[in-house]
Amino acid sequence: MAQRSPSEWQFFKITVPAQHVVHVEINRPQKLNAFFGPMWVELKNIFERLSVDSEVRCILLSGAGDRAFTAGLDVADASKPDNAISSSGFADPSRKATVLRRHILELQEVISTVARCEKPVIALMHGYTYGLGIDLSSACDVRFCTADTKFCVKEVDIGLAADVGTLSRLPKVVGGVTSWVKEVCLSARPFSAQEAQQNNFVSRVVAGSKADLIGEGLEFAKYLASKSPVAVQGTKNILDAAWGRTVEDNLNYTAVWNQAMLQSTDVQRAMLSGLHKKTPTFEKL
Amino acid sequence: MAQRSPSEWQFFKITVPAQHVVHVEINRPQKLNAFFGPMWVELKNIFERLSVDSEVRCILLSGAGDRAFTAGLDVADASKPDNAISSSGFADPSRKATVLRRHILELQEVISTVARCEKPVIALMHGYTYGLGIDLSSACDVRFCTADTKFCVKEVDIGLAADVGTLSRLPKVVGGVTSWVKEVCLSARPFSAQEAQQNNFVSRVVAGSKADLIGEGLEFAKYLASKSPVAVQGTKNILDAAWGRTVEDNLNYTAVWNQAMLQSTDVQRAMLSGLHKKTPTFEKL
Amino acid sequence: MAQRSPSEWQFFKITVPAQHVVHVEINRPQKLNAFFGPMWVELKNIFERLSVDSEVRCILLSGAGDRAFTAGLDVADASKPDNAISSSGFADPSRKATVLRRHILELQEVISTVARCEKPVIALMHGYTYGLGIDLSSACDVRFCTADTKFCVKEVDIGLAADVGTLSRLPKVVGGVTSWVKEVCLSARPFSAQEAQQNNFVSRVVAGSKADLIGEGLEFAKYLASKSPVAVQGTKNILDAAWGRTVEDNLNYTAVWNQAMLQSTDVQRAMLSGLHKKTPTFEKL
Amino acid sequence: MAQRSPSEWQFFKITVPAQHVVHVEINRPQKLNAFFGPMWVELKNIFERLSVDSEVRCILLSGAGDRAFTAGLDVADASKPDNAISSSGFADPSRKATVLRRHILELQEVISTVARCEKPVIALMHGYTYGLGIDLSSACDVRFCTADTKFCVKEVDIGLAADVGTLSRLPKVVGGVTSWVKEVCLSARPFSAQEAQQNNFVSRVVAGSKADLIGEGLEFAKYLASKSPVAVQGTKNILDAAWGRTVEDNLNYTAVWNQAMLQSTDVQRAMLSGLHKKTPTFEKL
Amino acid sequence: MAQRSPSEWQFFKITVPAQHVVHVEINRPQKLNAFFGPMWVELKNIFERLSVDSEVRCILLSGAGDRAFTAGLDVADASKPDNAISSSGFADPSRKATVLRRHILELQEVISTVARCEKPVIALMHGYTYGLGIDLSSACDVRFCTADTKFCVKEVDIGLAADVGTLSRLPKVVGGVTSWVKEVCLSARPFSAQEAQQNNFVSRVVAGSKADLIGEGLEFAKYLASKSPVAVQGTKNILDAAWGRTVEDNLNYTAVWNQAMLQSTDVQRAMLSGLHKKTPTFEKL
Amino acid sequence: MAQRSPSEWQFFKITVPAQHVVHVEINRPQKLNAFFGPMWVELKNIFERLSVDSEVRCILLSGAGDRAFTAGLDVADASKPDNAISSSGFADPSRKATVLRRHILELQEVISTVARCEKPVIALMHGYTYGLGIDLSSACDVRFCTADTKFCVKEVDIGLAADVGTLSRLPKVVGGVTSWVKEVCLSARPFSAQEAQQNNFVSRVVAGSKADLIGEGLEFAKYLASKSPVAVQGTKNILDAAWGRTVEDNLNYTAVWNQAMLQSTDVQRAMLSGLHKKTPTFEKL
Repeated sequence: MAQRSPSEWQFFKITVPAQHVVHVEINRPQKLNAFFGPMWVELKNIFERLSVDSEVRCILLSGAGDRAFTAGLDVADASKPDNAISSSGFADPSRKATVLRRHILELQEVISTVARCEKPVIALMHGYTYGLGIDLSSACDVRFCTADTKFCVKEVDIGLAADVGTLSRLPKVVGGVTSWVKEVCLSARPFSAQEAQQNNFVSRVVAGSKADLIGEGLEFAKYLASKSPVAVQGTKNILDAAWGRTVEDNLNYTAVWNQAMLQSTDVQRAMLSGLHKKTPTFEKL
Repeated sequence: MAQRSPSEWQFFKITVPAQHVVHVEINRPQKLNAFFGPMWVELKNIFERLSVDSEVRCILLSGAGDRAFTAGLDVADASKPDNAISSSGFADPSRKATVLRRHILELQEVISTVARCEKPVIALMHGYTYGLGIDLSSACDVRFCTADTKFCVKEVDIGLAADVGTLSRLPKVVGGVTSWVKEVCLSARPFSAQEAQQNNFVSRVVAGSKADLIGEGLEFAKYLASKSPVAVQGTKNILDAAWGRTVEDNLNYTAVWNQAMLQSTDVQRAMLSGLHKKTPTFEKL
Repeated sequence: MAQRSPSEWQFFKITVPAQHVVHVEINRPQKLNAFFGPMWVELKNIFERLSVDSEVRCILLSGAGDRAFTAGLDVADASKPDNAISSSGFADPSRKATVLRRHILELQEVISTVARCEKPVIALMHGYTYGLGIDLSSACDVRFCTADTKFCVKEVDIGLAADVGTLSRLPKVVGGVTSWVKEVCLSARPFSAQEAQQNNFVSRVVAGSKADLIGEGLEFAKYLASKSPVAVQGTKNILDAAWGRTVEDNLNYTAVWNQAMLQSTDVQRAMLSGLHKKTPTFEKL
Repeated sequence: MAQRSPSEWQFFKITVPAQHVVHVEINRPQKLNAFFGPMWVELKNIFERLSVDSEVRCILLSGAGDRAFTAGLDVADASKPDNAISSSGFADPSRKATVLRRHILELQEVISTVARCEKPVIALMHGYTYGLGIDLSSACDVRFCTADTKFCVKEVDIGLAADVGTLSRLPKVVGGVTSWVKEVCLSARPFSAQEAQQNNFVSRVVAGSKADLIGEGLEFAKYLASKSPVAVQGTKNILDAAWGRTVEDNLNYTAVWNQAMLQSTDVQRAMLSGLHKKTPTFEKL
Repeated sequence: MAQRSPSEWQFFKITVPAQHVVHVEINRPQKLNAFFGPMWVELKNIFERLSVDSEVRCILLSGAGDRAFTAGLDVADASKPDNAISSSGFADPSRKATVLRRHILELQEVISTVARCEKPVIALMHGYTYGLGIDLSSACDVRFCTADTKFCVKEVDIGLAADVGTLSRLPKVVGGVTSWVKEVCLSARPFSAQEAQQNNFVSRVVAGSKADLIGEGLEFAKYLASKSPVAVQGTKNILDAAWGRTVEDNLNYTAVWNQAMLQSTDVQRAMLSGLHKKTPTFEKL
Repeated sequence: MAQRSPSEWQFFKITVPAQHVVHVEINRPQKLNAFFGPMWVELKNIFERLSVDSEVRCILLSGAGDRAFTAGLDVADASKPDNAISSSGFADPSRKATVLRRHILELQEVISTVARCEKPVIALMHGYTYGLGIDLSSACDVRFCTADTKFCVKEVDIGLAADVGTLSRLPKVVGGVTSWVKEVCLSARPFSAQEAQQNNFVSRVVAGSKADLIGEGLEFAKYLASKSPVAVQGTKNILDAAWGRTVEDNLNYTAVWNQAMLQSTDVQRAMLSGLHKKTPTFEKL
């Protein structure tokens, strides 16, 4: 898989800290892991491969360096004259609109590749987690952070409504369009780790350093990796399908999903292991 | 109603602790109230009747014995060779899939009978509340528990994605596909009463014994039963219809619902009682 | 705008406490700001105008007097013989149903005018916030309250299911049809400011008096008003569109929205201000 | 009702050709009944009133003069410098977008007022039925035309995608996004009455003159007006609610609708009339 | 299966005219096959069994006698004093509404049992096909009729909006809420076989007698029964799931369905038969 | 664009028969244009490029040779042992299911690339148009065919439910899940050009040879290409968004789309050309 050719990726560092667990680090620490053009392409390729890599059962996503998960878009880069957002070379707003729409859809597709990854993805956040950092972690399944993480839905501060995922996924992952969601999205005011936990954005605030965070994330990842991959990945798929659809539709979808998946040898293995108090092993998926 | 012929049910105990209030107990305590074949049939029949019983205004659901609301599926029973899930008598996976799908849909229908019950249902949980215990209580309207309740979305541990309701209803009843929902559903790690409350799964953790829980549940049930049944049951119906649909659709649905229900004599009785500080009485529903 | 002719409104008081910020007060304090016929008409007109007033960037909504945001419907008025809900002049329930449905849809439309207002609306609640007070504040974007606010989804106590917005919007603004939502909606039991915050209904409980609440609300409003109105109002629109729809549909909607809005001069102004640490100014919207 | 003060409307002529039947004529024949500003306002007011006028059971909509139902937007008027669409007074495309969006939503709301009219509306078309003529007749319930009607989804020819209803309602009223729908919408090529009938847009092509068309429309309107208004208006409401929603949701909506409406005296009257071969009469609705 | 105990059903006749083909006849010809209480119960039981009977691959549904598929509800019976619809024993419209709603939902469930039947159902219609005849045949998959069939969406003539399926399913099975759909549903005017075909309600009008119709239906049923049941029943399930949902959702559903079903031995058998020009045989389903 | 390097594609031939018009030919005539592995990759790449090629305004899609548009999947190739569908190397049905699901989703994505192409695509069909030929042409916007075209939803004959698009898009493009749709999809019986037209699948059956078909298709393509590309492509986008969504949602989407697109210079150019009877020219898009 990806980790076998570390030199392949320029802005991400990929390691395998435990069996079936892959750690993806956003690796541009000198720029607070801010994103610019080539990083989007790499991110998409990495998650497309991990999604179908049968050796992988859980993915950790964090930011390299001490200061940031990611500070978001590299605004200095985005404000260069040749950037799609800032360019003014189109006389006609309808044609400029078309170029912009295609560009937004492309960036959304990168984040959606993370969201659609068949394997569970755990975001481990520390330091600046601004703008794109929220879009990206909202596309993950589980979110932990250190106590000193600084969050911000920053987009309003650069004059735009967040458009690569935050506004669509934040109501899903914190549960509704709450007063708090509106407060932080409309105002771009920063919020703390504690506030993130009280409002259901993260499920754990890990005491201690970034290393402690990575450690706790790794423990959880190893725990997930020890479970039936058929069960874990099915659970992810069905939970994500629930959003914006009725309970009735989701129940039927679940039945159709499980008509295949219950035929797994994992069921027998897991059931027998449970009855016999042994640790089961599962085939690759 | 059901309670008049107590001998009718083998695995459930049904009593009437107060006017208009029915208490349904899962009654297989020697097996931690674990479910197997005949219990599904009884549960469906009981709730189909209670739903339209005009004497009933509120239902309490709890588990008999000291140790469990329910430990979930009776895995020992489910792993017998003749069980739909574990049987291997079909050469062809498509035909086995069909049998499995029908079986899942049938079990889902049992839990959905609880969810569709016209009367409000209050789950009172203590001890082990594992697997099916989450599916079942997620189909109730209100959830209280004792401080020592042990919850677990256990299905991943038997090699499958929960398929009789948890994955479809948990996002509805706790508000979204939060990091915590993914954490407990993907990993099958147990969680405490306190965690359940912090994440909105239960609205009260009752201090003290199971008897205290039943007592507090009964007080709340009696309070609900004193209100207009037209108002209470309409509120339940409309709130459940909101999920997975737009605000606009739900507003229109509400108007169509109330074009009949506002013609109730309950409105006059309740309004006048409020103005005159008297306790209203309402006709059967 | 509205504020220029204060005498125009009989039951609302409209002021401009800061640039781009409008304060709307429900102004019938002698009746605990309870609503009756003419107030609905005024409320709709006010928010229709504010929605498109290019001088306005943020709206505060509060109740005049010391005792209530609003006690809800004026039940004494609603129980007069000529009121749509209580009138009994129709022999035929189908024809009475039609009159009732039209009446409900009209009242819903008033509250929906607040919800659709293009500018963000901050509800500042104190004292009695009963019945309609929940419908109304659920249609706002952000909710703050004083510590002594008394909330109640009161409708069940007058014999009906809430039908002008609470049951449709509460699951949206607190995140799901939680045990707590069912508890307070089915029972009409009052709840405190603290409970409202723990269950995500308000995002801040302001210590101190009503004046402190108004002060903190005003500070937040001024902060919002200093941001790009294109960004703020787009964020509101997109977040509200997320509810009851899929992530995929909302992402596409966002791209189509921003294909026009990213052409704003606000983007350049905000980006450059950020890079140069200056305060940007924005054109009217 | 409207028809009692004929002078009230400048661009529409309203008559009552039979009991319970109202005939609305678009009345600007010298301009081929093309629409400009004041006509939108009148159209909305007329249908808002007819919708709730208890004397009215069926509405006919046609165009005055020999030449057109309506030629659509008055392009000469729309291309004046002060028109929202053609004005160029906004430096900033995001602000111009906001003005345009509000303008489109306002015009859509006019057409939607026709679509939401509680009474059935029958479009009787002859001559030019271009652009807005398709938006408007697609919002009606039944469409008849003369053999010489000339239809055209004209908007592409003025450089825009139809935006006041055609693209949203044509797939609903002809059944799908067929090859033919795409052909006529993408190309703006005119189509004949025969083609309109073959593709389900009109259900009758009336042989003869415009007078014959009005005559046949009136016969059908009188027939509808002789039926139970509770049944007819309920049927319209439920059929329109079906679109874009599932069969399951629509079935439940129907049950909720009819829980009030089956209490109508119309049911007894109609049933008995049927059994006794008499003509029933029904109360106003 | 059902057919083995012919005496079991009083109002339906069940035969097996060819291998894997079951013929269900509505058998109350002296009353034009009109429905009353006990028939609903039988119909539901019959289709629940046929749905999962592994010997059955295709079902024909027709009406006994020369005069009718079914004349619909037995109005004389429905107008008896003890009938839910006509009873007037409830003082309170809200309580009567509840009884009516439950009754409608029960009847809808009977028709939905036909619609959800896993096996394809072919309606063969002749003579009177009124009211319930449309509800019932709209729930079938394929519709053929004789040239002399007389159709009518009759409900408006008994003072109500059709509520057991027609208004929800007719737009699905004829493609949209067309002018013709509104014409026949709003007016209850009868329509001919030819009109039914032109408007896509039936796909064949069989020349000749009722016997010719049954013959042609049987030929088609035998043809269907010769195909892979996994393929045929999957096609039915997926097509029905398409309605009211997006193409994107249906595509994903299809992939999840086929992840199990493509593992069928039917695929190999059918492919090889096709290549070798032989007739395949398939296992029971 | 693509057409500049003809050698780039092995199984497709791309030409530019007129300004802004591209002709894509499926080019494997010796195998009746049947699809196998490499063709899917090429098809996706071609339409991804054409979608955003600003020189292109309309695309024709046809099959090379005299005998077929496409005979569908190359079954001989698909039944080779290493093919995903037929391979039997997985002991565990859940793991085989995962591989199959990924494979189906990949193939669906190819066809969806055609459906999402921003430019209108016209399918010109002749000869065998079987299986995949229906999936593919259903993803196009307009469908013409010669009189001798032989259509077949062939999948049931190879033991599976069609899963790359037909079952999801056919109800959209012919208008509903009609009796005819079920008839041809459940049975895999072939149908003629005439039947295809009567059931709204094609909008024109062109008399004469395949050359006449291409000629008529080209004339229509040139006509489309002469129109405002902003208007044409917007119309396509909005019509496709209508399916499976409500009229209300689609109206709002249209307003948001046009808030950018009405700012096009195309509007002024087209309006003035219309008033002055001149042919407009439009900038690239």
